[in-house]
Amino acid sequence: MNFKNIAILFLVGTVSLSCNAQNESAQTTRTGSQNPIIFAKGEKITNDNFIGTVWLNNLVQADSLNQYAVGSVTFEPGARTKWHMHPSGQIILALDGVGYYQEKGQSKVILRKGDVIKCSPNIAHWHGASPDMPFIQVAITSRQNGPTVWLQAVKEEEYN
Amino acid sequence: MNFKNIAILFLVGTVSLSCNAQNESAQTTRTGSQNPIIFAKGEKITNDNFIGTVWLNNLVQADSLNQYAVGSVTFEPGARTKWHMHPSGQIILALDGVGYYQEKGQSKVILRKGDVIKCSPNIAHWHGASPDMPFIQVAITSRQNGPTVWLQAVKEEEYN
Repeated sequence: MNFKNIAILFLVGTVSLSCNAQNESAQTTRTGSQNPIIFAKGEKITNDNFIGTVWLNNLVQADSLNQYAVGSVTFEPGARTKWHMHPSGQIILALDGVGYYQEKGQSKVILRKGDVIKCSPNIAHWHGASPDMPFIQVAITSRQNGPTVWLQAVKEEEYN
Repeated sequence: MNFKNIAILFLVGTVSLSCNAQNESAQTTRTGSQNPIIFAKGEKITNDNFIGTVWLNNLVQADSLNQYAVGSVTFEPGARTKWHMHPSGQIILALDGVGYYQEKGQSKVILRKGDVIKCSPNIAHWHGASPDMPFIQVAITSRQNGPTVWLQAVKEEEYN
């Protein structure tokens, strides 16, 4: 093999390595694109109104002037709320992942990015992530008629 | 140039072309990542309470049970509201792009993805996109004490 051939092989190797490096960087971005984080995950919820790992970022607290609270909630796969009711209802904005939402007596609804749920006051319901994907939502909850009323756990046959 | 040299040059060209093709694909994804669309843009606003091109997707209408409206608003670069007030205040969640927010008598605030504004009732303010980037926000507005009160246009010296 002469010098020219060695130089050409070196060039092939350089182009190839450079290409791989750029694609690894792009792969990181692609993963980021599938899971865009708009709000920080916040704190892990430690009360027993949830099953599995759930994170809450309280974006806005209710007060005497703004009577609704806004929070970003991240459910890890399989995580969910207990059944519960809001005396003034709740709005759920699905930001990312795949989630479940169910009202008492209704079929389970699958939620994906961009879906919106308007839950009427005092309707028992639960929500959470699907078994294989996390679910990120913004919850808008009025405190005007009192706090959330927590009910029984979601049975495995209700979840699945 | 012998056959082996031609073959090697062909290989360099193939690797290089393949690399470019993959990076173009990644570039598209990167652009998408910078501008993730969670909610559809909705309808172009045609009333004169806004300057420039602004899109509104009414996610939730206010009603007797849920007295707050939720909308996704997309401001194209340079677009903005007039000065206005909400009798029950407003929450702004910045989803993407670069936006401006200003309350009367205060400095202009730059908003980016994940920023949250809690605007108190009856405080004159305006919001919109920066001159060079669009701005996407979710607005949560209580209708409990009546509709938005629209005021004067934002002067160029206030905007810039």
